[in-house]
Amino acid sequence: MNRYTAVQSLLILFAIALLISPPVIFAESIEKLDPNMAVADPDGEWIWYDALLLGIEGKVWGETEKPYDRLPAKAEGVVTDSVWKLSKHSAGMAVHFVSDAEKISAKWEVTNDNLAMPHMPATGVSGLDLYVRLDKGWHWIGNGRPSQKETQAVLASGIPAGSHEYLLYLPLYNGTASLAIGVPKEASLAKAPARPEGKQKPLVFYGTSITHGGCASRPGMAYPAILGRRFDRPVVNLGFSGNGKMEAAMGELLQEIDAAAYILDCIPNMTPELIAERVVPLVKALRAARPGIPILLVENIQYQSGAFLEASRIAYEEKNEALQESYGTLLGSEYISDLYYLPGDTLLGSDGEATVDGVHPTDLGFQRMADAFEPVLKSFLSE
Amino acid sequence: MNRYTAVQSLLILFAIALLISPPVIFAESIEKLDPNMAVADPDGEWIWYDALLLGIEGKVWGETEKPYDRLPAKAEGVVTDSVWKLSKHSAGMAVHFVSDAEKISAKWEVTNDNLAMPHMPATGVSGLDLYVRLDKGWHWIGNGRPSQKETQAVLASGIPAGSHEYLLYLPLYNGTASLAIGVPKEASLAKAPARPEGKQKPLVFYGTSITHGGCASRPGMAYPAILGRRFDRPVVNLGFSGNGKMEAAMGELLQEIDAAAYILDCIPNMTPELIAERVVPLVKALRAARPGIPILLVENIQYQSGAFLEASRIAYEEKNEALQESYGTLLGSEYISDLYYLPGDTLLGSDGEATVDGVHPTDLGFQRMADAFEPVLKSFLSE
Repeated sequence: MNRYTAVQSLLILFAIALLISPPVIFAESIEKLDPNMAVADPDGEWIWYDALLLGIEGKVWGETEKPYDRLPAKAEGVVTDSVWKLSKHSAGMAVHFVSDAEKISAKWEVTNDNLAMPHMPATGVSGLDLYVRLDKGWHWIGNGRPSQKETQAVLASGIPAGSHEYLLYLPLYNGTASLAIGVPKEASLAKAPARPEGKQKPLVFYGTSITHGGCASRPGMAYPAILGRRFDRPVVNLGFSGNGKMEAAMGELLQEIDAAAYILDCIPNMTPELIAERVVPLVKALRAARPGIPILLVENIQYQSGAFLEASRIAYEEKNEALQESYGTLLGSEYISDLYYLPGDTLLGSDGEATVDGVHPTDLGFQRMADAFEPVLKSFLSE
Repeated sequence: MNRYTAVQSLLILFAIALLISPPVIFAESIEKLDPNMAVADPDGEWIWYDALLLGIEGKVWGETEKPYDRLPAKAEGVVTDSVWKLSKHSAGMAVHFVSDAEKISAKWEVTNDNLAMPHMPATGVSGLDLYVRLDKGWHWIGNGRPSQKETQAVLASGIPAGSHEYLLYLPLYNGTASLAIGVPKEASLAKAPARPEGKQKPLVFYGTSITHGGCASRPGMAYPAILGRRFDRPVVNLGFSGNGKMEAAMGELLQEIDAAAYILDCIPNMTPELIAERVVPLVKALRAARPGIPILLVENIQYQSGAFLEASRIAYEEKNEALQESYGTLLGSEYISDLYYLPGDTLLGSDGEATVDGVHPTDLGFQRMADAFEPVLKSFLSE
């Protein structure tokens, strides 16, 4: 055949190769886990890799008492006992991996027998939640519904051919004692490639039960997780139910984190007096330790019965006035650069339907919170 | 004083009277419950009225085996055993009342020990949910979080002076064995006035676990309940988890209901074969029995992993094609008037985040479903 036909044929072959190649192409440098590190089921259906082999996104400190603790071992006795206990919950942690498996399972054990709360289902408190990266962004594909302390569940099957990038969120309100990811024995499993330059530092959220993820139906619907997917960045969740109180010790731990931004959403757990006492020094110390990194102060959500019950309304209005006061000080006499402020009136919408109990957002409320946070974060995060 | 001053004084007195009058003024004809029918607490804090004294909205048949059953006693052995069992759940029922109480409590007992499901919290499965009518419409103010089979809970306190109109939703996925409403002994309690002329007939929803309310965080967030509030009409919830299959016996029961509209949302529980077999005869019989009353056929929701997993996508596409076929028959050879159709692609949005498990909407999904239903219902409901 002549040169023209040869070139044409090559182009056609190339086009076919493109068509049949995996939908996502990863650099050859991705290091696949050695199957010798996996444990095979007796019947050979699954081989299991300890998730720790893949690394845990959203975990800041290596030196922890247990592998899925949110605070370092040295924090025990330094932070309050309540914060320490709650730091054992795996909120915000995720396994970020790549696999060509046709189906994916998980086997995980939680630390607490109470798999659910009366106002938050076991899927959110103790469950797993799996997302895949599609062209348009992260997309939910399956979750692990816990039935007892240790659960094995197929998260997805019938997965299209090729390698795909996944994010598997860990339980929000329970500790994760162990987690193994199961794939068919011929499938590969690898740590996901690092996120692109400029998107590797985490968004750090410090706050209350709301930040902690109460009451999402599944771990991926806590608002820090939603924002992590929208901005395609790692997230650190330092929400401590009932205990986001801006103690100096917590401020010092925040300073240790090399963050893209610090989001301080503690107001629902603080009195106006505590706000007046603690916000300014915590922000000043954080600014001194981390110059130039954006700090976002978030007002209290509007409790959903406040449109009718005055006490609910006053409860958040007084706190927000106290926070505005502190913000004024930080803009004025104690000038702090790169400081941002998110008012509470847009966080949950205006129809009163955003929570399960007036205080804790459902997935509807968390989606609305993410919508309110997104433009503010966008305004100061470098792309 | 001269006439001018007298008129002025009267006007001022009238203005003051207006200011201190209750925010909602009800006709004198509202019949308050006789306090002799109430049971007082030993400490005198609350007096308790059986909710049955107020009547149950969303309950069609008087002759039921138990007071909070959704189907009549005669349906036992006529509908399938599964439907019969599920008809014992109080989904969609609500107590519609007026009270000038400064605080409101409830004491309720459910029939099933399992207060929650792994993917739906106890607040939705077995809880109560309280709304008040404000100028702009119904507004959430409090809920009852069940802790055991029998629970007593304060639903709201610090209520502004005056009489207010309330809607108290019953548990979605549990039976209600008994329900008492508690108010302070000096407070009155009365059945709410009938809804305005033209808004008294109910919206009747027949369907699956989704219609039944799975997996709302609280009873008021099931999509039939949301639509009931938006259109300010009673709602009848005939959702039967896993069992909305359009049997002829269910069709006959539907015909007995004097409805504002029939919404048929059974497709997720039916195979394409069952759809081909049952939709046309059920709709024809309903039209013959109830001429002129709108009937809405609803397509299957899009399962949320369908953007990635082909099997999930095919599962709903095949059913929706079958329903389109039946709809075509009903528009053509078997012409049926006042028949409407709601496609499935708008029901849950397009981001894949609307459910807890790919199938069952969370409050986020139910809000989106209500948004998709609203314009369609508006198009055929007479105001």
